Amino acid sequence: MSRFAGREGPIRLGMVGGGKDAFIGAVHRIAARMDGEFQLVAGALSSTPEKARESGAALGLAADRTYDDFEAMAKREARLKDGIEAVAIVTPNHMHFAPSRAFLRRGIHVICDKPMTATGAEARKLAKEAEKSGALFALTHNYSGYPMIRAAREMVAGGFIGALRGVQVEYVQDWLAAPAEQLGSKQAEWRTDPARSGAGGALGDIGTHAFQLAAFVTGEAPEAVSADLSSFGAGRTLDDDARALLRYASGARGALWCSQVAPGNENRLVLRVYGDRGSLEWAQETPETLRAAQLGEAPRILTRATAGEAATRLQRIPPGHPEGYLEAFANIYAETAAAIRAARDGAAAPAGVMFPGVADGLMGLRFVEACVASARRDGKWTAL
Amino acid sequence: MSRFAGREGPIRLGMVGGGKDAFIGAVHRIAARMDGEFQLVAGALSSTPEKARESGAALGLAADRTYDDFEAMAKREARLKDGIEAVAIVTPNHMHFAPSRAFLRRGIHVICDKPMTATGAEARKLAKEAEKSGALFALTHNYSGYPMIRAAREMVAGGFIGALRGVQVEYVQDWLAAPAEQLGSKQAEWRTDPARSGAGGALGDIGTHAFQLAAFVTGEAPEAVSADLSSFGAGRTLDDDARALLRYASGARGALWCSQVAPGNENRLVLRVYGDRGSLEWAQETPETLRAAQLGEAPRILTRATAGEAATRLQRIPPGHPEGYLEAFANIYAETAAAIRAARDGAAAPAGVMFPGVADGLMGLRFVEACVASARRDGKWTAL
Amino acid sequence: MSRFAGREGPIRLGMVGGGKDAFIGAVHRIAARMDGEFQLVAGALSSTPEKARESGAALGLAADRTYDDFEAMAKREARLKDGIEAVAIVTPNHMHFAPSRAFLRRGIHVICDKPMTATGAEARKLAKEAEKSGALFALTHNYSGYPMIRAAREMVAGGFIGALRGVQVEYVQDWLAAPAEQLGSKQAEWRTDPARSGAGGALGDIGTHAFQLAAFVTGEAPEAVSADLSSFGAGRTLDDDARALLRYASGARGALWCSQVAPGNENRLVLRVYGDRGSLEWAQETPETLRAAQLGEAPRILTRATAGEAATRLQRIPPGHPEGYLEAFANIYAETAAAIRAARDGAAAPAGVMFPGVADGLMGLRFVEACVASARRDGKWTAL
Amino acid sequence: MSRFAGREGPIRLGMVGGGKDAFIGAVHRIAARMDGEFQLVAGALSSTPEKARESGAALGLAADRTYDDFEAMAKREARLKDGIEAVAIVTPNHMHFAPSRAFLRRGIHVICDKPMTATGAEARKLAKEAEKSGALFALTHNYSGYPMIRAAREMVAGGFIGALRGVQVEYVQDWLAAPAEQLGSKQAEWRTDPARSGAGGALGDIGTHAFQLAAFVTGEAPEAVSADLSSFGAGRTLDDDARALLRYASGARGALWCSQVAPGNENRLVLRVYGDRGSLEWAQETPETLRAAQLGEAPRILTRATAGEAATRLQRIPPGHPEGYLEAFANIYAETAAAIRAARDGAAAPAGVMFPGVADGLMGLRFVEACVASARRDGKWTAL
Repeated sequence: MSRFAGREGPIRLGMVGGGKDAFIGAVHRIAARMDGEFQLVAGALSSTPEKARESGAALGLAADRTYDDFEAMAKREARLKDGIEAVAIVTPNHMHFAPSRAFLRRGIHVICDKPMTATGAEARKLAKEAEKSGALFALTHNYSGYPMIRAAREMVAGGFIGALRGVQVEYVQDWLAAPAEQLGSKQAEWRTDPARSGAGGALGDIGTHAFQLAAFVTGEAPEAVSADLSSFGAGRTLDDDARALLRYASGARGALWCSQVAPGNENRLVLRVYGDRGSLEWAQETPETLRAAQLGEAPRILTRATAGEAATRLQRIPPGHPEGYLEAFANIYAETAAAIRAARDGAAAPAGVMFPGVADGLMGLRFVEACVASARRDGKWTAL
Repeated sequence: MSRFAGREGPIRLGMVGGGKDAFIGAVHRIAARMDGEFQLVAGALSSTPEKARESGAALGLAADRTYDDFEAMAKREARLKDGIEAVAIVTPNHMHFAPSRAFLRRGIHVICDKPMTATGAEARKLAKEAEKSGALFALTHNYSGYPMIRAAREMVAGGFIGALRGVQVEYVQDWLAAPAEQLGSKQAEWRTDPARSGAGGALGDIGTHAFQLAAFVTGEAPEAVSADLSSFGAGRTLDDDARALLRYASGARGALWCSQVAPGNENRLVLRVYGDRGSLEWAQETPETLRAAQLGEAPRILTRATAGEAATRLQRIPPGHPEGYLEAFANIYAETAAAIRAARDGAAAPAGVMFPGVADGLMGLRFVEACVASARRDGKWTAL
Repeated sequence: MSRFAGREGPIRLGMVGGGKDAFIGAVHRIAARMDGEFQLVAGALSSTPEKARESGAALGLAADRTYDDFEAMAKREARLKDGIEAVAIVTPNHMHFAPSRAFLRRGIHVICDKPMTATGAEARKLAKEAEKSGALFALTHNYSGYPMIRAAREMVAGGFIGALRGVQVEYVQDWLAAPAEQLGSKQAEWRTDPARSGAGGALGDIGTHAFQLAAFVTGEAPEAVSADLSSFGAGRTLDDDARALLRYASGARGALWCSQVAPGNENRLVLRVYGDRGSLEWAQETPETLRAAQLGEAPRILTRATAGEAATRLQRIPPGHPEGYLEAFANIYAETAAAIRAARDGAAAPAGVMFPGVADGLMGLRFVEACVASARRDGKWTAL
Repeated sequence: MSRFAGREGPIRLGMVGGGKDAFIGAVHRIAARMDGEFQLVAGALSSTPEKARESGAALGLAADRTYDDFEAMAKREARLKDGIEAVAIVTPNHMHFAPSRAFLRRGIHVICDKPMTATGAEARKLAKEAEKSGALFALTHNYSGYPMIRAAREMVAGGFIGALRGVQVEYVQDWLAAPAEQLGSKQAEWRTDPARSGAGGALGDIGTHAFQLAAFVTGEAPEAVSADLSSFGAGRTLDDDARALLRYASGARGALWCSQVAPGNENRLVLRVYGDRGSLEWAQETPETLRAAQLGEAPRILTRATAGEAATRLQRIPPGHPEGYLEAFANIYAETAAAIRAARDGAAAPAGVMFPGVADGLMGLRFVEACVASARRDGKWTAL
């Protein structure tokens, strides 16, 4: 039984990395907050002490829970009575290993961004640490969280496609088509730097997502690859484009393509799996549908409404209200919050803030009443 | 200057309605929580006292902030030093008016689900209350929160389509094609009941969304309608299917269709606006893109990356990671949270809980290294 | 038994209209030729004698089968031993009635472009002529020839959607958004001229297609309409944009929209039909698929492979080789023909003519052999 | 100058193969007929003499122009005054070489189905024959005939995508997922037989199409491949599924996948090409559009209306009337023809034959008039 047995309320969470200018840290915080299950209470948000403190203050962390380095944070939080029970590691790849180990050794659960580490050697060491620790280690291969991906996995396991024959998976982007790392992009800088990213460029950054997703859905991992890596960006040493053929022990064959230099693509992550009886197809940019085909039948477009329990177990809103519905809803709240905060001081809402209000409400009711009146008079044109 | 001037931290929020079995209440809570701007601290969550208390406890509200009726809540919260600054009204339509008035009269901001009230008479009264109150009134026409809808509005205002000529808007569903209200659906019961919904059935429930969205984007509201309403469901008195032709003062023409009995549709909300120079098209089920056409040019598929500032002002994640990305991410957190809570008591994670972990991490690194090795040896097949 | 009993070979066909600059005449000729069923042998191709003769010569018609007016043609062809058995009428609307009557009265089958006539009065007269004549009268509502439309009709008749509740049909274009009739477009001139088009502008030109298609598929025609017509183009008296609500005797409801001033649309003809059990959806711009949904099931995307016999009865090529496959194929033939004709005189092929040849063939074989060789050597990179 | 100099009318065409039960022969005949450029006058339509004669009669060939073998046909036709000027070779792969040579040697133009021959050795020999012959050799890589493919080629040549970096091409089907060759399919029999198909199975049949298309559009052919071939069908010796990585001399990289065992695919031929500035994407199943993207701009969906002259040079109908429009049109003609032939003998049209007629015409006009009347009376419901 852990020292947290009996605790109530949200799980106390710390964060390593994710200070100002970071992208994935903010994503982790929103994801952690969405269901009210986690509360961020501590952080070592940057390797630059000043930035770490500023970022902590901006997030509303107590000053004494804002640390300059993860090691100090691990030590102190492990001793605090209301110390963190879990930590999110959202640093560049080369800074995954050491913090993960530090927290795992102290029995603090780790939620780590992918890839697990920068090198295979580190990964193997960390795997041993995790085994010894008793604490959980979760890796945010977030695409495996999509309801339709859960459904796909269950369908493959249930025999929908029959015996696996083929896998086509790709994750392609274009943000490194231009030399972004020479134009001041922090994100591009560390991702094209072998010292911080490890041996894989696009491979490590997005290829691993594609690879994990294929394995997650098919339940099989390739036993061999034949790969061809390119560095199209001038001066790049890491791959920014990679193609690999895949061989599976079962006899299945496949291909994986990842690229960060493919113009016209934002985040085109597409998985297609083929068996001897059927196939499944999913695309991250339209994640609410799954194309499911079986020999001799018309393909079906599944949604959460028809894809079975695996798809609905994790849904927050009904089928047909896709993805983004919650964010759009939240935007209304956010705009309202901005206006409320301004109202505290008797100020007008900041420029650009807008949310539907009384006028919209009146107009809506007038519309309903006019329609009803028009219909009652056989479609007579009725003023609003 | 309000009594909340100088307050720090999230805005304290109350909720009327939204107890167990409610759909939209949970959506409001997630939306309110997403950006950390609101904290739910009080509620009159049900008109059944017992259910109100149970629901309050389940949401972690203090017992003395869990009220049996909204009137009591409004009175007491208005006097508390740390009382709520805003309230979300998420009851059926006929219960929008009274609570909205009660809180507005006490200077508490109201965030109300749509339609504003059940009748036009109530709406007009409430509009007057809002005007007197000084408190804000926000109506959750949530579709106007979508980034691409904001972009569409800005583009119309900026002359992209030229002078408005046509509007085609529809919001169609199929969940009332079968007589759901006779089969135990609470949602269907009140929506088909004139006493609780008002004069409009599908019109009030989803037609108002379509109507508001068209007005929001075009900046024009029709001056007259010619409508035809049907009640296809046996025993229904309210419309479950409605079509209206629209006339605008500017000379533009349009059509609106809403239906809850159109098989094969989940939430097909589609808006198309046409001017003398161009057109825009948006669909809620694929909300991340906006089709933008101008005479003599190939249509463009805009995303947040290319739709201008109005689209990016409210985004939380980069273009190409649509909607739902955050939820998928949050699912990884939620699964981890379930495992963490189980771990507190030394228990295994509940059945079905899954999140990527060490094995995935190892596999990812092995994949990267094998690819790099294969590529170095000119594509030699390399074991994983 | 007709005077053509026992005749062999293609059906001899005449044409009224369809001279130079005409659009639909060429379409009729290709359609007539496609299956080798018709051979064009006579024509009154223009009301301008000189143009009629030039056009006849260009099409390879004998000089004595090229007529200055349709009346002369009808008289003479009816007496010739190898006279035409059928005639295609491809003139503007106001010139449908007289030629149709002239040929019908002489027992010559008529294939007439739509709409049947310019006015309802003419249509009723012509209907009587057709009844008396014994000759056939076919109207080229060509959209009812699509395989998937045939399938849709059969599915509705077979109960797939249940009892009809709703029809949404639209046919929208943008080629009249600008005042094309003032810019020299012959097509636009007669279509916006009440004297040549009749009472309907967009309504007659494309609205009738939408209307016929809906009736063809549902097997029901509306019993009443409520319409709103607009003329957005400056100086236009005929509608260029029209919306109508539809009421069916069965209780079903519908809406039709046709427009020639909707920017961003080429030929967006979309039909959706809804019953109490299911729905069907088809779009002319992607005519090879039919979306078919039933309550409680995932929608299916039908193609000719899965849509039943009605869809395959008229197909020329296998499913998945859509539409246009034949034209692409024919383009290879056309390019080759141009080169062959040039070769007759020892000349080079005209500029721009291209077709795959020997080099492509060699390359293809090299590719196959290199792939086989590479695979045999375990994926060794193999030169082409 | 050839012996055909000065000839008028369609080009006289012969055919080798394409008798009963053949698929591609009929396609060639329709394509040859579509523009009236060719007239089929001779054939050696089958290697079985009886079948050859029956097939010839069915196609209306004169008895003395129906040959039992291609050799006899080549000899005699070369001597006839009105002999064929061109021949279409539509036999299985292993029967491409000998007939092609026989006709080329006699100065008769050859239009040959792909692949050029069954083996590379034959291909090289034939290339020499073609060089010597003076007659033309056209290979029906028909996909290169699509208007949007022509546009794509021109755009790449014009610099739209910049320097080529990546090519992704695939052609996948599912008709051999089941062992069709053991179930009586003639098409499957010869395609899975190395003696008749050559070294490539799916590779030769469809992989060569994908390969040619990529080369046609990019203007570059790979210099090396790394391939992996599989034979999933029990008892198959030829590949039914193949993946290859591609390397170009320019530094570009690519991947090709062809499969005939991928459930859920009919003829999924998709080409994507990426440069350092932009990308193009085309799919055969929706051939009328071309997705064109450039860095920093929203992708455009090009059609023939906006893709430039290369796309319109070969079009027969206006943009937005896709592919299949002509076939649908032709279906109306074909149905009418069936009725006309029946009418010759006073018989009713065969069962199932249908074409729009008088009733449709009347209905259309009634619709127009009712709409106009309704609109004039402000949308009054007006009976049809």
